[in-house]
Amino acid sequence: MTNKKPLILITNDDGINAPGLRKLISLMRPLGEVVVIASEKVMSGMAHAVTIQTPLRVTLVKEEEGYTEYMTNGTPSDNVKLAKYQLLDKKPDLVVSGINHGSNASINIIYSGTMAAVLEATIDGIPGIGFSLLDYDHKADFSHVDEFVQRIVRKVLLEGMPDDIGLNVNIPRASDTPLKGVKVCRQAKARWVEDFDARKDPYGRNYYWMTGNFVNGDPALDTDQKALEENYVSVVPVHVDFTAHKYVEKLNFS
Amino acid sequence: MTNKKPLILITNDDGINAPGLRKLISLMRPLGEVVVIASEKVMSGMAHAVTIQTPLRVTLVKEEEGYTEYMTNGTPSDNVKLAKYQLLDKKPDLVVSGINHGSNASINIIYSGTMAAVLEATIDGIPGIGFSLLDYDHKADFSHVDEFVQRIVRKVLLEGMPDDIGLNVNIPRASDTPLKGVKVCRQAKARWVEDFDARKDPYGRNYYWMTGNFVNGDPALDTDQKALEENYVSVVPVHVDFTAHKYVEKLNFS
Repeated sequence: MTNKKPLILITNDDGINAPGLRKLISLMRPLGEVVVIASEKVMSGMAHAVTIQTPLRVTLVKEEEGYTEYMTNGTPSDNVKLAKYQLLDKKPDLVVSGINHGSNASINIIYSGTMAAVLEATIDGIPGIGFSLLDYDHKADFSHVDEFVQRIVRKVLLEGMPDDIGLNVNIPRASDTPLKGVKVCRQAKARWVEDFDARKDPYGRNYYWMTGNFVNGDPALDTDQKALEENYVSVVPVHVDFTAHKYVEKLNFS
Repeated sequence: MTNKKPLILITNDDGINAPGLRKLISLMRPLGEVVVIASEKVMSGMAHAVTIQTPLRVTLVKEEEGYTEYMTNGTPSDNVKLAKYQLLDKKPDLVVSGINHGSNASINIIYSGTMAAVLEATIDGIPGIGFSLLDYDHKADFSHVDEFVQRIVRKVLLEGMPDDIGLNVNIPRASDTPLKGVKVCRQAKARWVEDFDARKDPYGRNYYWMTGNFVNGDPALDTDQKALEENYVSVVPVHVDFTAHKYVEKLNFS
């Protein structure tokens, strides 16, 4: 790292008004030049969706020494692409996303806009870190996260990350018990079992709300779910490769 | 496989009126009992998005011996969840998705609703196969795909698939040269370099259309992109694990 301040791009999927985003901004401003790009609406559950059917809008919300903030109508993935290719005049040194209100550990990563933004950074070789708190509440208590968020970010700014690798960081909710530390682990093999809430509207037509129960079928000790249960901050190195490599040699359709 | 007809769930991300969906239905009906669940609108680029901010609607479009068709306002991922947990009274034997108008090879999988539906199946241990044609045209020529789609589906129905593994199948566009066969391969490490088309609306406000150029930075011979370039059908075994396993032991944030 040179003496030059690093350029840190911040985004999230809970929208521009989320307290988790404001927390992350406050933790990043002492560490570098900060550009924020966030959606006007909540984009939870948008995963890696990109906007190709409708045009994108960008509003410059705030601009001051070392700090710029944009609001868009796009998804988290759109936002990182807009920043990289349209708004910034240089490549960011780091993309941080969050702090998400709710877990993105285990299977949740695939539904996560927070982590889509991180993966979108890693695709271009930019270090990316997603932070999520295991508390869905809009008024969640973020008071215990500072030390861990800053420790992880400082280390990545100092040492960089291997090409195309991002970090999925999840933090237990605030409690009377202090966090035990940071554990690097793998994504647990868990799933959601959906339970649709079927209702009738005032005109007699059916509609459904998606709800579900989280089921962890992975009792191993080296997973993010296990680390979180034991009150550790979990860190999973992630990349965009869906290939089940051990089956490439085994399958044959000729 | 017993003598009982397998239950095949079909979905896509190009919407219920896409010719690629109709082609896939025509190829699956001789092979089993078919249930179709597709979105009323085009859901391209929706990735693994799920609908949690608004309610879901389902319309029964058609019901006859061995065939049922539903239309929804949901994403591909919603549709598979709706079918699994609300509409079907038994677990499908297979989920097939597509035939997508356009490639889902290499990096495209992460933006793909077609492949999200497949992954959603595999999360519950249901074999899933996504079919995509390398032709974005609504009027794309699907005349050369039958043999390959049926060969792959028959084999999976007969032999099953390892738990939590799905298939990402891409098919070169129709040409005078016959397809060379099927190759099992890994996802190429490629990316999109975005080129936003900035315009002004009639009221003088800026807006952007996302466009981009596909860049394959992976010259290896064992990738899906390479197989497709050589006029093979590419098959990549896929699963939902973002962990970059080789870095789990190497990283340390304590």
